[in-house]
Amino acid sequence: MSELWFPPSERPRDECGVFGVFGHPEAAQLIYLGLYALQHRGQESAGIVTSDGHTFQSHKGMGLVGDVFDEEVLRGLGGHLGMGHVRYSTTGTSGLKNAQPIVMDYAHGPIAVGHNGNLTNARAIRDELEAAGSIFQGTADSEIIIHTMSTLRLASERDALLRMLQIIEGAYTLMILKPDVLIGVRDPHGWRPLCLGRLDGAYLLASETCALDLLHAKYVREIEPGEVVVISESGLESLFPFGRNTPRAHCIFEHIYFARPDSRLFGEVAHLVRKRLGAECSREHPVEADVVVPIPDSGNSAAMGYAEASGIPFDFGITRNHYIGRTFLQPQQAIRDFGVRVKLNPVRETIAGKRVVVVEDSIVRGTTTVLRMNSIREAGAKEVHLRVSCPPIRWPCHYGIDFATRGELVAANKSVEEIGEFLGVDSLGYLSIDGMLRCMNTNADSYCTACFDGDYPVAVEGEIDKYILESDRRQEYLRFS
Amino acid sequence: MSELWFPPSERPRDECGVFGVFGHPEAAQLIYLGLYALQHRGQESAGIVTSDGHTFQSHKGMGLVGDVFDEEVLRGLGGHLGMGHVRYSTTGTSGLKNAQPIVMDYAHGPIAVGHNGNLTNARAIRDELEAAGSIFQGTADSEIIIHTMSTLRLASERDALLRMLQIIEGAYTLMILKPDVLIGVRDPHGWRPLCLGRLDGAYLLASETCALDLLHAKYVREIEPGEVVVISESGLESLFPFGRNTPRAHCIFEHIYFARPDSRLFGEVAHLVRKRLGAECSREHPVEADVVVPIPDSGNSAAMGYAEASGIPFDFGITRNHYIGRTFLQPQQAIRDFGVRVKLNPVRETIAGKRVVVVEDSIVRGTTTVLRMNSIREAGAKEVHLRVSCPPIRWPCHYGIDFATRGELVAANKSVEEIGEFLGVDSLGYLSIDGMLRCMNTNADSYCTACFDGDYPVAVEGEIDKYILESDRRQEYLRFS
Amino acid sequence: MSELWFPPSERPRDECGVFGVFGHPEAAQLIYLGLYALQHRGQESAGIVTSDGHTFQSHKGMGLVGDVFDEEVLRGLGGHLGMGHVRYSTTGTSGLKNAQPIVMDYAHGPIAVGHNGNLTNARAIRDELEAAGSIFQGTADSEIIIHTMSTLRLASERDALLRMLQIIEGAYTLMILKPDVLIGVRDPHGWRPLCLGRLDGAYLLASETCALDLLHAKYVREIEPGEVVVISESGLESLFPFGRNTPRAHCIFEHIYFARPDSRLFGEVAHLVRKRLGAECSREHPVEADVVVPIPDSGNSAAMGYAEASGIPFDFGITRNHYIGRTFLQPQQAIRDFGVRVKLNPVRETIAGKRVVVVEDSIVRGTTTVLRMNSIREAGAKEVHLRVSCPPIRWPCHYGIDFATRGELVAANKSVEEIGEFLGVDSLGYLSIDGMLRCMNTNADSYCTACFDGDYPVAVEGEIDKYILESDRRQEYLRFS
Amino acid sequence: MSELWFPPSERPRDECGVFGVFGHPEAAQLIYLGLYALQHRGQESAGIVTSDGHTFQSHKGMGLVGDVFDEEVLRGLGGHLGMGHVRYSTTGTSGLKNAQPIVMDYAHGPIAVGHNGNLTNARAIRDELEAAGSIFQGTADSEIIIHTMSTLRLASERDALLRMLQIIEGAYTLMILKPDVLIGVRDPHGWRPLCLGRLDGAYLLASETCALDLLHAKYVREIEPGEVVVISESGLESLFPFGRNTPRAHCIFEHIYFARPDSRLFGEVAHLVRKRLGAECSREHPVEADVVVPIPDSGNSAAMGYAEASGIPFDFGITRNHYIGRTFLQPQQAIRDFGVRVKLNPVRETIAGKRVVVVEDSIVRGTTTVLRMNSIREAGAKEVHLRVSCPPIRWPCHYGIDFATRGELVAANKSVEEIGEFLGVDSLGYLSIDGMLRCMNTNADSYCTACFDGDYPVAVEGEIDKYILESDRRQEYLRFS
Repeated sequence: MSELWFPPSERPRDECGVFGVFGHPEAAQLIYLGLYALQHRGQESAGIVTSDGHTFQSHKGMGLVGDVFDEEVLRGLGGHLGMGHVRYSTTGTSGLKNAQPIVMDYAHGPIAVGHNGNLTNARAIRDELEAAGSIFQGTADSEIIIHTMSTLRLASERDALLRMLQIIEGAYTLMILKPDVLIGVRDPHGWRPLCLGRLDGAYLLASETCALDLLHAKYVREIEPGEVVVISESGLESLFPFGRNTPRAHCIFEHIYFARPDSRLFGEVAHLVRKRLGAECSREHPVEADVVVPIPDSGNSAAMGYAEASGIPFDFGITRNHYIGRTFLQPQQAIRDFGVRVKLNPVRETIAGKRVVVVEDSIVRGTTTVLRMNSIREAGAKEVHLRVSCPPIRWPCHYGIDFATRGELVAANKSVEEIGEFLGVDSLGYLSIDGMLRCMNTNADSYCTACFDGDYPVAVEGEIDKYILESDRRQEYLRFS
Repeated sequence: MSELWFPPSERPRDECGVFGVFGHPEAAQLIYLGLYALQHRGQESAGIVTSDGHTFQSHKGMGLVGDVFDEEVLRGLGGHLGMGHVRYSTTGTSGLKNAQPIVMDYAHGPIAVGHNGNLTNARAIRDELEAAGSIFQGTADSEIIIHTMSTLRLASERDALLRMLQIIEGAYTLMILKPDVLIGVRDPHGWRPLCLGRLDGAYLLASETCALDLLHAKYVREIEPGEVVVISESGLESLFPFGRNTPRAHCIFEHIYFARPDSRLFGEVAHLVRKRLGAECSREHPVEADVVVPIPDSGNSAAMGYAEASGIPFDFGITRNHYIGRTFLQPQQAIRDFGVRVKLNPVRETIAGKRVVVVEDSIVRGTTTVLRMNSIREAGAKEVHLRVSCPPIRWPCHYGIDFATRGELVAANKSVEEIGEFLGVDSLGYLSIDGMLRCMNTNADSYCTACFDGDYPVAVEGEIDKYILESDRRQEYLRFS
Repeated sequence: MSELWFPPSERPRDECGVFGVFGHPEAAQLIYLGLYALQHRGQESAGIVTSDGHTFQSHKGMGLVGDVFDEEVLRGLGGHLGMGHVRYSTTGTSGLKNAQPIVMDYAHGPIAVGHNGNLTNARAIRDELEAAGSIFQGTADSEIIIHTMSTLRLASERDALLRMLQIIEGAYTLMILKPDVLIGVRDPHGWRPLCLGRLDGAYLLASETCALDLLHAKYVREIEPGEVVVISESGLESLFPFGRNTPRAHCIFEHIYFARPDSRLFGEVAHLVRKRLGAECSREHPVEADVVVPIPDSGNSAAMGYAEASGIPFDFGITRNHYIGRTFLQPQQAIRDFGVRVKLNPVRETIAGKRVVVVEDSIVRGTTTVLRMNSIREAGAKEVHLRVSCPPIRWPCHYGIDFATRGELVAANKSVEEIGEFLGVDSLGYLSIDGMLRCMNTNADSYCTACFDGDYPVAVEGEIDKYILESDRRQEYLRFS
Repeated sequence: MSELWFPPSERPRDECGVFGVFGHPEAAQLIYLGLYALQHRGQESAGIVTSDGHTFQSHKGMGLVGDVFDEEVLRGLGGHLGMGHVRYSTTGTSGLKNAQPIVMDYAHGPIAVGHNGNLTNARAIRDELEAAGSIFQGTADSEIIIHTMSTLRLASERDALLRMLQIIEGAYTLMILKPDVLIGVRDPHGWRPLCLGRLDGAYLLASETCALDLLHAKYVREIEPGEVVVISESGLESLFPFGRNTPRAHCIFEHIYFARPDSRLFGEVAHLVRKRLGAECSREHPVEADVVVPIPDSGNSAAMGYAEASGIPFDFGITRNHYIGRTFLQPQQAIRDFGVRVKLNPVRETIAGKRVVVVEDSIVRGTTTVLRMNSIREAGAKEVHLRVSCPPIRWPCHYGIDFATRGELVAANKSVEEIGEFLGVDSLGYLSIDGMLRCMNTNADSYCTACFDGDYPVAVEGEIDKYILESDRRQEYLRFS
């Protein structure tokens, strides 16, 4: 047995989910439930802040929502407004210090901020603030946002907020809580989703509609890119401080992989988009085969689309183990691909002797994929044809997705043919960029495709990785002199 | 928020999984991995006992395998033979006291016993032993087994084992560890599965073949009903102390629901059996409809079988939330069906305006099913046709499945028509007993169908429930006199 | 830093304290408080069992009373009768398994037993019971007591109790709880103390009177050696099943060291006895000196007696650190006597340049004493005269005190002169056995002095150590054959 | 049972202890041991920061040193310099957020600060910093110190330190760690102690000499009031940035109560000072009596002094329970004075029928004292004469002692005669201020006596209490506008 080991995930991981409530006597409980529905957006830490109009109550912890909160904790989170956050880290290393929402007390009183996305100029802002005497607790973007508002020294907090939004750059969906106000912000390009709901007179803000469904809440609309909604006793006020001309750059990966299949975002339902991606893939890369098998569960929708479009029967050829926790011990020797097998096991009888089309939603490093393909081959597949329902990922994401660096992206370093050889499959077909965009019925020109084509809507200096804020910015610490 | 709440599960829950190793230097680690693959058979507690040929090392805890064991614990479990157990309680209430394997030190030295099943005469044996002075720690069947062997006062432990097997009755797969011997026993009717594998010269015993697959071990054969295998340095010895004429009574529910779809048991692969059950159901209960939707994941295979046989398209109409822990807080008010919704959410766009065939593997109490049907109806289904891939469950199980009492079984108290009304569906079709047995290609006459027809292969006095061993057998405690 | 390290205690440690209540609506709370007062009698584990007349509630844990119980736990311990126990192990290794009270459910219904002392024939009884099929959970004497009662197969539990008392031998104060009865037993020699009190109509039983004082309870009398008190709704019944002729053998070490100075036991108050011991020591071993200094706090009373009788001024020459927890990390190098110094530090200005009489209550191994004497010497003492207020301990105790084996007792292997040299003191004076007994005003002929003179009132075979019940009684485990 | 309850302590509690090391390969282990010796100065939290010359390692936790650190933690604290802190809160409420040392990363790189005392202008500084945009994590004075240095925006950190020292006011002993430098500072009035030691070539800084004793370290000298020592690879540099003319204001309460009796501070050993205080008290308030009894352990030294000077015999009339943890459950009814009795129990036989002089070191609120006097009276004392070895405490302390507010100080609101009646004693004698100062052989004019006479060496605006930094400085939070 080696050290504690996190299964090497091929999955691009989105960083966060947010959920806010204004005007419900059981605000904390609604937030708690809403976070359950958004748990797929972040499993590292969870936090809730509530307010009774005057005072904040807050609780955060590492782990899943169900582990972080219990009844006693929730009872302590009184009040009729509040917000919650689930997090996987993008900027800033793990740890409770960076868990969100970040709650601080500053010149304008208490404030809490939860953030989904990645500020592309976080480092520059922080350097400037520190030089002027600001001291940071952690490395979360949310903290930079509050410090920025603080040092502006404006008499009005509203002005400080709007001014701050002109300073920060990049991808962000913000949720800000004041003792008596809930604010939602979506960056002008609209990378990350945010939607508005109503329940029993209360306002709800959520990263995805599946959280509204869980509460039987009414879905009202998406918060628009560049929109700031200020919810208070006076109702909902909508501001557009950036104007309305910024081109859209929705994260297409939300549709390919991140969002729950039952969520509606950017005007479309993820499951249906994925089925179209699979179908389009079958048109671009047809093959003679006996069965279409998904990599469960993220490949299910696309595989079904492929099967329907191609006429090749769909079957569950791989069983998913539902009881794998977040960590397990890696066997020292023997079972090399244990991390893969413990999660997914082929159903030999479905695969043996067959020509199998395997559908994956995406490939990042390729290291897990190669083990999965081996596993299918060992189960007796006569032929293995891998179909990927998105294009090759060749560029890192600067807007909040924790892809690897370029060096680690298999498609940045190998041609499709070479990848096929590396994976040991009989054929490999990636969906094309054009094919992918064709599957977006609405707003097809509104998506960010930077990870596929390197065309970044907002420029960044240097290649950002998530540890940048912690890097040795002063290798030579000033000696005490 | 009310008290800590376990989601009301409709699911019949099997009680246990066992895994044993003889002759591998990393026995504990193999067991740990094997238990991961068997986790679906019990999530309440987990335990491992190992031996270096002389001394036992043991660790047990409440919760999932990944929570109970860590690297340090596993390092402490040295030796080349051992066994592990995952448990959901059937006889005996929850708690570490009843967690298995039970390890004891008695006249024949140390012994560990893990048990899957239910002894139908446990209560009578225990009463007799207590009257003679035996004192029990808990209520697990395994403890009764050891006490029985202890009080026989035979010079040979082997004789004590074989004699004990003549005393206990009911359904059991036993795994017994001595410091230098691993023993597997399957009751003569063969209710619960047990299979034999080999890996690098070591012998493996496992409840299901999926545990062998995970380890890349070779599947050798099933342990036969009534067979006792004694594995020691001298190799594997096979005994048949009951003769070979006992009629078979395999638990057909293993195929309907319990076993992992990729496991082979009673000569068949569960996924394929389930597809046949779904197909047979479509033949018995055809309907004009637009889409076939499974209740995921247990209904997936049968739904696919129904779709293929009927020609109606299959689709994922319900999304499963993969991050639900084992407990969560139930909202006080508002969301009545939260327990259902938090796990499963309809994909409105797949269902709305459609005639939907919903496929469930089984219905026990019906209380969860009614919420699920409502949820699908609310998502806009034009018609809801429920198909169940097994017959109505009308009788409690005395052989290890934690069904409710008769009073709680919806089909014991309502006709199919009444159940359909109760569930609010447009039509309801259960698979017939004959239809079900037709799907068993092999050994079709070897299955226990007591829960469907009340025909119990081994008689029991009174209706057994899982708390019987703890019931107030002496309501009037002897006063101190 | 080496491993977790327990300070090498020179102190002979008594094993247990017990406290019982009958007839008070807040029984658990009184027990909890009583155990606080008895905490000096055992710091390893604590437990409480209560009854509402029908059902037991129980809680045990490792550690101090204040750590084991909190408000919620106490609230769960309802009922008007009950008992508690604090334990340092004598027979049986540490661990929750052996924590007391032991609660079991046997032929006569539920029973709880707490025990203070040591059964000299525990091993023989256990062997016999195991051969007949009994299975033991742990190694506590209490469990042997219950198993003995169980296997007697008598119709009346009272008969079983009285019969059991004829079987067990050695030193014991027992407290037994039945759902509606509280029983106290003191062995016929009366080694360990037990007293009776009343509070608001309720009966109290306690190891020492200091527990009654804490509750403002009325002290009634000591339970007599050989007495069995049965307390029930009918009141208190007193039995003398052994007759009244057994010679007394009170543990004189209770007076020398164990009991709290404010407790009255065996007819005397410990603090006053200790002052007399110190005074007698000054008469037997006078010396010209400038100051008398106690080893705090156990030497305080004797030192004061020495000072008063000799006319030499008393002073606090050693400071005790009150914040030492039970374990601390031992520095790898450097500070050899850290374990001693961290607890006790000389006040240099009180000692330097003086002729110092140091008073210790007793010396067991001598290894700590030598470090203490060094420490005083280093603080500048001109002369160090050690006076010990009891005789040399030359024999192990078989009646419940965890002295070392003979090999470890410094006085069993060295003459007093040699000990003085070993300790590096200018003179060493132990109190004589006769001198010690002269200090007992009452019952001077009623004390056990076996640890000083080897005259054991009840014989034991072989030298008992506390691990005997766990020793490899079957080095060669019966092979499975 | 009511809620978790902290025993109402009459004791004035000093807030903190600090310990630093420069130049020892096992720095963390020395600090750990040193903190053990300083544990009496703070039991709420403990922390250690170490450095290898470049990087900090840090660990803090709530509770005692022995609970916060274990071997693994200490192993992780590598390096040859470092500092530790034990804390009871003065400014700032409890909680890990305020646990010290405070470690931050700011414009001059990493810095750690530990603080003992109370800044009288902390609030004003903080308000100013916040208005300028600084954001605080907690309310500890240490954080204010770092923020002040940060916002000075000086190129040299040394300049920032010296400039900061001109800004802060009040009582402080500071310990500052940079990656390669250890700095000790004592405020110019010298309220809190700090001493210098050497061990194996390493430099040590400690709040009290008892920490040096524990390590067998050599005591060198006290750090002088107003002195800054900078310890680096170049050795120890001593600065006097305040000049040397500030009048001394040593906290006389360190001698009366806080310091360990074996510690030397302000040129004297506490135990000897206390004996003189008791003796002086006997001269000021003689009485005919039979026995002098201390309230253990803080009254021990003074009681001994009283007894020696008066000729009345000293005796241990009250037993202290050594096993009281930091919290216990308060019984709902019944035992009113449980909090007192559980800690201290009179030895009836020492007191009954006697005229008793009881010696306390000080009285703050008087609520505990009244219970203690009752307890002695109930034990049968014929007369109770209370002698207090310091003057009446009439004024709150602004320099770091957590006295109550004036309203709670019994001597601020009652005459000595009234206090005597309130306590129900036969006579009450407080030592006079002059008498107290006579007992200080050295520097008798150098002590702060503000708590007795209200003569505050450094002025403060308003009455400071320890929650001031958390008070609602903006009752009306700026609305979001």
